This record gives sequence, C-alpha cells and structure tokens, in this order.
Amino acid sequence: MAATKIGRSRPKNAFYAQSGGVTAVINASACGVIETARKHKRTIGKVFAGRDGILGALHEDLIDTSKESAAAIRALRHTPGGAFGSARYKLAGIDRNRAEYTRLIEVFKAHDIGYFFYNGGNDSMDTAQKVSDIGRLLGYPLTCIGIPKTVDNDLPITDCCPGFASAAKYVAVSTREAALDVASMARTSTKVFVLEVMGRHAGWIAAAAGLAGRTAADAPHLILFPEIAFDRDKFLARVKETVERRGYCVIVVSEGVRDADGKFLAETGTRDAFGHAQLGGAGPLVAAMTRSAFGYKFHWAVADYLQRSARHIASAVDVQQAYAVGKAAVELAVAGRNAVLPIIVRKSSSPYRWTIGEAPLTAIANQEKKVPRHFISTDGFGITAACRRYLAPLIGGEDYPPYRDGLPAYAQMKGVAVRKRLNQAFVL
Amino acid sequence: MAATKIGRSRPKNAFYAQSGGVTAVINASACGVIETARKHKRTIGKVFAGRDGILGALHEDLIDTSKESAAAIRALRHTPGGAFGSARYKLAGIDRNRAEYTRLIEVFKAHDIGYFFYNGGNDSMDTAQKVSDIGRLLGYPLTCIGIPKTVDNDLPITDCCPGFASAAKYVAVSTREAALDVASMARTSTKVFVLEVMGRHAGWIAAAAGLAGRTAADAPHLILFPEIAFDRDKFLARVKETVERRGYCVIVVSEGVRDADGKFLAETGTRDAFGHAQLGGAGPLVAAMTRSAFGYKFHWAVADYLQRSARHIASAVDVQQAYAVGKAAVELAVAGRNAVLPIIVRKSSSPYRWTIGEAPLTAIANQEKKVPRHFISTDGFGITAACRRYLAPLIGGEDYPPYRDGLPAYAQMKGVAVRKRLNQAFVL
Repeated sequence: MAATKIGRSRPKNAFYAQSGGVTAVINASACGVIETARKHKRTIGKVFAGRDGILGALHEDLIDTSKESAAAIRALRHTPGGAFGSARYKLAGIDRNRAEYTRLIEVFKAHDIGYFFYNGGNDSMDTAQKVSDIGRLLGYPLTCIGIPKTVDNDLPITDCCPGFASAAKYVAVSTREAALDVASMARTSTKVFVLEVMGRHAGWIAAAAGLAGRTAADAPHLILFPEIAFDRDKFLARVKETVERRGYCVIVVSEGVRDADGKFLAETGTRDAFGHAQLGGAGPLVAAMTRSAFGYKFHWAVADYLQRSARHIASAVDVQQAYAVGKAAVELAVAGRNAVLPIIVRKSSSPYRWTIGEAPLTAIANQEKKVPRHFISTDGFGITAACRRYLAPLIGGEDYPPYRDGLPAYAQMKGVAVRKRLNQAFVL
Repeated sequence: MAATKIGRSRPKNAFYAQSGGVTAVINASACGVIETARKHKRTIGKVFAGRDGILGALHEDLIDTSKESAAAIRALRHTPGGAFGSARYKLAGIDRNRAEYTRLIEVFKAHDIGYFFYNGGNDSMDTAQKVSDIGRLLGYPLTCIGIPKTVDNDLPITDCCPGFASAAKYVAVSTREAALDVASMARTSTKVFVLEVMGRHAGWIAAAAGLAGRTAADAPHLILFPEIAFDRDKFLARVKETVERRGYCVIVVSEGVRDADGKFLAETGTRDAFGHAQLGGAGPLVAAMTRSAFGYKFHWAVADYLQRSARHIASAVDVQQAYAVGKAAVELAVAGRNAVLPIIVRKSSSPYRWTIGEAPLTAIANQEKKVPRHFISTDGFGITAACRRYLAPLIGGEDYPPYRDGLPAYAQMKGVAVRKRLNQAFVL
C-alpha cells in the first residue's frame, strides 16, 4: 500500500535534550545539532527539544525547534545557558525504575522519534546507553547518540570537553586581571587574594588559572587542587614566603579541595552563632586562615555561575568544538551509528590540531578524569609544563557575541510546544 | 647670566600618582597624561610617576616614565590595575602632619617638579588641594591638577567617574549571563542566585545590574542598595513571590547594604564556632536567609576585584573618558590652571554626547554622591527609567585588549627609578 510505504519511509523525528549544569557553549552544540539535522531532511524529520532536558520527554513537554527561525538557531551559537532548559535528573537503573524508561519510549513512539541526542556529562552518557538498551528490549529501536558537555573537563576518552575551555579562559583572564589589581595596591592594602573556582572532584578549572602566569613571580602563586590533600601548615608557610618575597599572594582554590581525610574543606568548618553551617566556601575559608595566622589583609572572590556562563569571553576553540560535536552527533546518526558519542581527538599541541573521533557511550559512562599527578608541580601548588602544553591551546581565540546597547544580544527561543498526543500525565 | 636664563626657562617636570582602589581604566588616564605631556615638551619636562602612589613622593621613589617606549605607554590604555602602583594612604590635615607636606615639597623641589597630577577619588582631590595650599605657603608654587577615578561613581559634580562604567558593564553582562544559566536549571536545581557587588556607601554598581533586564520578568528581580534600609520581611516576601511566579529569582546585592539602624548587613552576623567573625559578605548572607525561610536551593557569587579589573569587558565610553580626563589634566596645567580637575559633562543622553569640563578641587573633595531616590523604584528593589537613561549610555561599546595565546596582552612597565637626590629617608 502506498500509504504504508510513505509511512515507512518518512524520516523519523529527533529528540534533543540538555542535561546537568549548563555551560557557555552548550547552546553551540544545540546549534550544531539543529542546523545539521536541517540539512538531512530525508533522514531526520523535526528536532524536538526537551523542555528542561529529560523532564521534557517524561512529561511529554517537547519544544518544536522547527518553529525557530534560522537566525534564532544561528544565535544559539553565541548564547550561554541552556536555551531549552536543562535538568539535574538522573534516571535510576532500569531494574529500579523501569516505568521511566517505558514512559520515554512511549513518548518517543507517540511523536515518531527515532533519534535521541543527549547533551551532557558522564551520567547522561549512562542514561543514553540505557535508553538505547530498553528501546531494543521493547521492540522500539532508537538511535542514541551522546554529545559531551561539562565545565569540569572530567570525561574520559575525549581529549577535552566542550564547556571547559571557556570556563578555563574566563578563570585565566580573571586571575591575570585581578592579580594586576592586587599587585598595584599590595604595599598599603590587600596582601592575599583568593579566587574560588568550580571543580568539585577534578581540578581542571583551577589548573587553568595557572595559565595566567608565566614565571614563579607571576600570579597565581598557589593553586589548591581537589587532587592534592590540603596541608594547612604547608599552605600557610608558602603564603608567608610569597608575601615576603613578592609583596602579595594570589591563590586560586578549587571548591572541591579536601583535607587529608578526604573531607571537603568548605565543610570542615564551622557553624555560625545560630548553628547554621558556615556559609562561605573554600575560598573565604583559606583567605581567613592567612589572616588568623599572619594578620594579612585579604580579599576573596567566588566566581560561581559567572565562570560557566561567561560567553562574553568564551574560547573560540571551545565554541568550534561544541558546535562540531553537535554536528558530528547528527552525522553519526545519519550514518547509522548507535550508542556512541563524538569526542575531541588531539592531533598535535603546537600548532594545535584536533579532529572529531567516536567512542562507545559505555566508555564514558560514570567515569571521572582527574588532573593527573604529573600535571601538578611537585610541591602540589602549581601546574607543570606538560599541563600547560595540554591547557594552553584550549583557551585560544576569542569569539565575541554581538552587542546591543552595550550588552550581549543573546538568543531567545520562542519555545513553541508540540501538541501532546498521550492522554496521561506522568508522575516522577 | 645665560646659565640662569636656561635654568629659568627650562620646563618643569611633572609628578603623576595613582591613589586608592585601582580600576580597569585608571591606566588609560595615565596614558592620557603621559602621551599629552610628551606633546608639550616646551612646558612639561619629564613625567615622574610615584611608585605606589603618593608613597613614591614621600619616599622619593620616582619612576621615570621617559624610559618607557611609546608602545608601552600606548598599551597602558588597555591595561587594568595601577601600572605604577597605587596606595591607600590619606595625608592627614596640614595642622596634624605638616612634616608630610613639607617632605612632598622638598622632593618636588629636588626633582624640579612643577606639576602635580593626582589620579584618585574625593580624598585625593582633598590632598591635591592641600598640596597646592602648602606649596604656595612654602614659596614653592605647584600646579596641582586632579584626575577623577573611582569604580564607585560617588564623586559629585562630574556626571560620571572613569572606572565606574567598566565595572557597571561587567556587572550588567555577568548578571545577564548568570541569569540565563539559573533560568535554564531552575526547575530541578538552584532557585535563588545572588551576586554581591562593590559599593560600600553608594549603590551605583548594583544599580547597573538593572541594565541586564528590560521587563519585570527579566533578571535581576531584586537589587539591594546601600541607600535603602534592608527590610528582611519585605525582601523575603518578594523573593518568594518571584520564585513562585518566575520559577527562580536573581538578586544583586551591594556589599554596603545596611539594616534600618545603619549597620552593615555583612556585620550583623554571626561568628563561627571558633568565635571568628562571619566570613561571608552580604551576598552569602541574604542567600542563606532565603533557604532558612523557604528551603530554596541557592548559589552566590562575589565578584570582588574581578569587577574592577575586568579590562577584557571594559566599556569603550569609559576608556575614552578615562583617557580624556588624563589628557585634559595636562592641557589644563599647560593653560596655567591650578587646583582644578577635569570632569565629564553630559550634553545629551540619547544620543549620548559628552564633553570635558572643569571644576575646582574643593568642589569634589570629601563629598559623596549616592544614588538618588528617584533612580530607585518605589518598592526599593529596582531601578527607574530615569536611572536607566543615566546609566545605559555609559556602558556603550566594547574596547577589547589585544590577545596573545588566548590571554590579554597587558602592558608591563620597566619602572626605571629616578636617581635619589635627597640624603635622608622619610619615616611615615
């Protein structure tokens, strides 16, 4: 029957979702996915984005990206945050929560979705693998492709991870700038400046601050990594030595720095007069230590979300790579690959050359790549030449967004909802 | 006698010093001073900069800027911090500390300095006035010209103050970016985000965050000004209302926010388990309040020095104005003016047109311009259209520094010391 033939040959729709903490360039990956899918209309129908990530699939709350203009989609490339919404929501194992997986497949079936693009970290790669498994099990085979993303740069296999390099550039630039400020005032004012950066388990962002300086005289004078157990006495001795020799001391501390017992420094604290847990993080804590010990005047900054949303100072390399993995994900799907993700492969560091490779989702799922010991100097407070060789090319190039009235003109999606086809709501 | 004639007609040297907290563009003023002085060699000899500001004069520690290349001086225009060092050092009244003023005059005399350019805030304008007075009193007349500078924008008379607009742009851009991050994750993650900004007595920087949003739906949803007494209940009610209506709430708080008794919020706190004063500032404090009251997940950032050193996102208008006041200071001196400073005069807001005017140092000295009540919305949590008309033009245009290897290439001075001519050290 002709109708059946048409039905069978009609291209399947795609579902795209952002997952976990967003970055300055995750929308560049979305841009890569959508623009590339639009070039493969014979294979891929519409791209539906999950509103608030995977929750959008569970609640059948889909955004029809075909309603967005080409200009709006292009503008995603220079827009930080998650344009369709992201979610911190990890699907439990299939055994423990089969209902959620079944629901996903029902929603995908109802909307003729044959492709699942999941843009996230190692948890999300695990979820994408499970969705692929359950689809096959339930007789609804899906093409499941991961798209790597994380500011933490802690995914294995891929040389680096989109999102990281822009946070790295922000932190390196900010450290260099703040250090000039501190240096110029140190004689009569602040002696110790502390910048707290992200990285709960891996110190990649903290390491990137090391790019701000070239010689031992340059800031940052100390970096505190989650990979190195915090030694209060050694830390204080080094701060004192630096202040005495340089006149001031700039410290970059990862939020995830821990003591010898593996306890987060920010938690070893302290309760306020009302018994509330200490409000400050690792930054204010180590800053105050130096005053307690030596009476140094200190200042501290906590970059928090600013560092992962600072699209205004994004790395051009990062933007290119984020776009490239989005584009490659669609091309892998079109080529018939499944349960894989595109990764960044470094061909050479100087000059920096990279290409897109491919890895199975299982190679990424639930694994963490920490800063290796040989990237951290012997004393534990700095980065090595090997680390510098790895990091330096990643922050290369500026990719400025357009400005209107002095402010970046960021994209806003219309976010038109796809009409629901299932009758029942889903309770998480 | 010919020798005497030459001596009398020889141009006097100039002394330039940076004072107080540095900014992203104070070196652009230095650039304006030095480049302009180099064009008036018949009137002004060498420009000596004080190492660490006025301390350089007291200690006879002068930097010979004639040893710096034209390229190095030009690079000051795009370099944050204080290239010659600044100082938080206020000269006491002449009655109480005549020795310091006498010493200044001795040093100036020893180095044939006839011009004193002081680049600072209201305290510094007061000092410049006193130096002018004492010079006359001691029979060593000096041309004393102020150059306005402060991130706080709290100087009277001048329409705005170089240094402010770049901090304002940084805060407006960062607020817009972080808000996109928070909005995209709010459903399953952070509901309340707080950004703490500078402004101990005046809320200009906090007000600038208001430029990030256009409608009531846009972030920032609340701004806490030092000019408005903090009302905990009203604050919490507004946060709750915002989270319930918008899904999240972005708050920008000035470090100087106070309670009804005029006490800094950051001090009303709390001591940790060891009896140390609460480490956090106003930002972490109000963030924690929202959790105590409603259980909201929160994040906070403290921009601290990052906001006043962020030359990478400086306002082009600010850079132009900073350069212009440096240039004008020298031109005023050459024209024979004394005890004055160049100021920014607004001719129109839309289109934005400004020019350089002139005011007596006494008009600026020791006065503070706060955010007027009609610039703050009736409820006390936002900015008015009048405030927006005032602020918007100031953050106009981007003035990116050059980059090398992914990082801004900032100027470094050789800092060649002028040979000392006085025999005695000076004890502060």
